[in-house]
Amino acid sequence: MEAPGGAEGVRCHHPVVEMLDLPFLPFCIFLGLLGFVCVAFVSAWCQYWRGGFAWDGSTQMFNWHPVLMVTGMVVLYGAASLVYRLPSSWSGPKLPWKVLHSSLALAAFILAVLGLVAVFRFHNDHGTPNMYSLHSWLGLATILLFSCQWLMGFSTFLLPWAPAWLRGLYKPIHVFFGSTILLLAVASCVSGINEKLFFSLKNGTTQYKLLPAEAVFANTLGLLILLFGVLVLGALARPSWKRPDADSLDSCQPLLADER
Amino acid sequence: MEAPGGAEGVRCHHPVVEMLDLPFLPFCIFLGLLGFVCVAFVSAWCQYWRGGFAWDGSTQMFNWHPVLMVTGMVVLYGAASLVYRLPSSWSGPKLPWKVLHSSLALAAFILAVLGLVAVFRFHNDHGTPNMYSLHSWLGLATILLFSCQWLMGFSTFLLPWAPAWLRGLYKPIHVFFGSTILLLAVASCVSGINEKLFFSLKNGTTQYKLLPAEAVFANTLGLLILLFGVLVLGALARPSWKRPDADSLDSCQPLLADER
Repeated sequence: MEAPGGAEGVRCHHPVVEMLDLPFLPFCIFLGLLGFVCVAFVSAWCQYWRGGFAWDGSTQMFNWHPVLMVTGMVVLYGAASLVYRLPSSWSGPKLPWKVLHSSLALAAFILAVLGLVAVFRFHNDHGTPNMYSLHSWLGLATILLFSCQWLMGFSTFLLPWAPAWLRGLYKPIHVFFGSTILLLAVASCVSGINEKLFFSLKNGTTQYKLLPAEAVFANTLGLLILLFGVLVLGALARPSWKRPDADSLDSCQPLLADER
Repeated sequence: MEAPGGAEGVRCHHPVVEMLDLPFLPFCIFLGLLGFVCVAFVSAWCQYWRGGFAWDGSTQMFNWHPVLMVTGMVVLYGAASLVYRLPSSWSGPKLPWKVLHSSLALAAFILAVLGLVAVFRFHNDHGTPNMYSLHSWLGLATILLFSCQWLMGFSTFLLPWAPAWLRGLYKPIHVFFGSTILLLAVASCVSGINEKLFFSLKNGTTQYKLLPAEAVFANTLGLLILLFGVLVLGALARPSWKRPDADSLDSCQPLLADER
């Protein structure tokens, strides 16, 4: 039986399909705006409903925790992960793009460590135990994985000492854990926002279960973070946005050596 | 400068790399065991620490919620998503594999709906509001997306009426949302376990912050669910495990029509 669409319709690259193929740069601008909205939402939540910011062990110090984690582990991390999807990174020397990728990732890591300091100091100053909730286990595991990922990436792909076979071996592992860490970071954020709302909204007329404006706002923040994470992971997985030579001979060569 | 590994080392498919290439079936067996462990852990948690099961609006009825969600939206859903990664599905008629894929997904959906019934009836019988926490927003959004995904998949790929260009257009969307829904399901499970532990462990010597055995057990369950989700998403993204003809002409043809 012939396909209903006829011979033309049987091909995967039907004009309708090609017409809907999304270009990377408009997507990237939308993603940048969405990342900005996530940071604005988490900052507004902590400023308007949770009392603002300080660095003194108080609840105002805790407020840096969600802001730094969303900014670092979601938005900056997402930006770092997409560097090689920029078509301008596909030609010319690769070193500047590698430096940009690792610098953005390092900035994300530094913010995450400051975010950890904020919550540990707040807990310690209030006599609250650390590391008991699933959120804390997951969050710390995510940051430990990220520290391994950054160190391994730096020593394998930026330092010139790793042999080519090791780069070829490690590259798919680095790519896999790159997406995995973002997934874990997003799951950490969602569980953390949920947990924080149960902690903060438990008395009087502002109970979480009565869905006050703060709860709607912070729940929406959680969904926006998820949308950001899903879009970044989708962009990373999309074959037509990968470097055309991603699996070719060239990409397995020691790239710092190439620059000489 | 020559690569340190020499000419042989420059190729991506170095013997060391190939040696470490994982075959799908042993991975699949490990994943099946991990899925079984997740279901066993969530059942043991609810049976041993949360009072067991009933279908009467009590907290024992609530206990079906985590068990049905983990079994349906994580383990069965993961199994459904990996059907086309089985090498035996790559040759011969595709229809039986499509029927298996959609049946497993339908079974997952039915368990998820029963899981929703369990929590809504428990809330209603106890005068607790529904749909206020981020966990509930995310969980319901996941199941609504899943219902659209199943209906669209069934009507596009199993019924013979959709034209080939529509199948070609919808296929990458179905694949993208397939992974997205699993990611959302895993994030829902993690936030739900975290929330349940804060609800259940708040009095006396069993406080969550004192990390009793139940908290360690359920936190571990959360990490196991994350590991399962990450492995399924990694398997779905792995190029060498995809159907060799996944993007070819053949896979865009109306496949029920092919079987005639």
